[in-house]
Amino acid sequence: MPLDLKALVRSIPDYPKAGILFRDITTLIEHPEGFREAVERLAETHRGAGITHVAGIEARGFIFGAGVAIALGVGFVPVRKSGKLPGETIGQNYALEYGVDTIEIHADVLGAGDNVLLIDDLIATGGTAVAAAGLLRRTGARVAHAGFVIDLFDLGGAEKLRAMDVAVEALIPFEGH
Amino acid sequence: MPLDLKALVRSIPDYPKAGILFRDITTLIEHPEGFREAVERLAETHRGAGITHVAGIEARGFIFGAGVAIALGVGFVPVRKSGKLPGETIGQNYALEYGVDTIEIHADVLGAGDNVLLIDDLIATGGTAVAAAGLLRRTGARVAHAGFVIDLFDLGGAEKLRAMDVAVEALIPFEGH
Repeated sequence: MPLDLKALVRSIPDYPKAGILFRDITTLIEHPEGFREAVERLAETHRGAGITHVAGIEARGFIFGAGVAIALGVGFVPVRKSGKLPGETIGQNYALEYGVDTIEIHADVLGAGDNVLLIDDLIATGGTAVAAAGLLRRTGARVAHAGFVIDLFDLGGAEKLRAMDVAVEALIPFEGH
Repeated sequence: MPLDLKALVRSIPDYPKAGILFRDITTLIEHPEGFREAVERLAETHRGAGITHVAGIEARGFIFGAGVAIALGVGFVPVRKSGKLPGETIGQNYALEYGVDTIEIHADVLGAGDNVLLIDDLIATGGTAVAAAGLLRRTGARVAHAGFVIDLFDLGGAEKLRAMDVAVEALIPFEGH
């Protein structure tokens, strides 16, 4: 019987601010079978899809993305916050609730012929994931698959990725408000 | 024949500032066999040591630490920068070249009977790793093992950990200056 992954996610009220019910994946990753099963289920869906790289979004996406890359036997590409990568980078801005943020990848990391699986812990409104998919595609790579542990499904992020021809797999649905 | 992991590390001069030769592990993790072998070698050393959790230090330590946790079949504990964890935390200050930084873990994540393997991508002067080992021990857990991909051995960090009775495994030695 598969583990109940949803039961391993802790819900923290009023974090990071009043009115937000934060879904905390640290209780899932601290659980040996829970972490392994989440990674295995994200990997399993994409076996046979010709994935060449897993891209994980800083910082929680590194935890699941690295595990999925190991499980699939492919390389790992870190999608980092601005100013964190030492080589030549390309970047993409995206809107936050208040202001703008930037994510970056190394300019030489991917190219035509590469087939990237995008991984993050959670998708909500999809701002970061849409920016990451677009940024990764600017290298010439294919980005047709994305996996998330949690989908705050009523916030519409997964639909935005699907509208970009990215197939989305999410393990745990939660209402986002 | 084992892969030459050292050859997969890119060296970037004058980053993050003039005179520093930065050892960039992104070229290693983007290499499917390189990433897998680094993770497997860090895990292999610690099989049979009764490890219950891998703790990885934000952010690059998440990438290797998550892989090692999956390889060992244990839970993963994120050691995060200040203000990033949603639950109740305990923290530890440590000195930077100019100023002070803080790392945190969830207060309830570990306890007596747990046996933690500390993982990071690189050890230099050891400030962060020493702070992390001390912080993890404040939960009552045992911290007797640490693994790093790169050891800038002449900067003395590994010796500081050994002086705390932490056995240190590092895959790739580099001179640090």
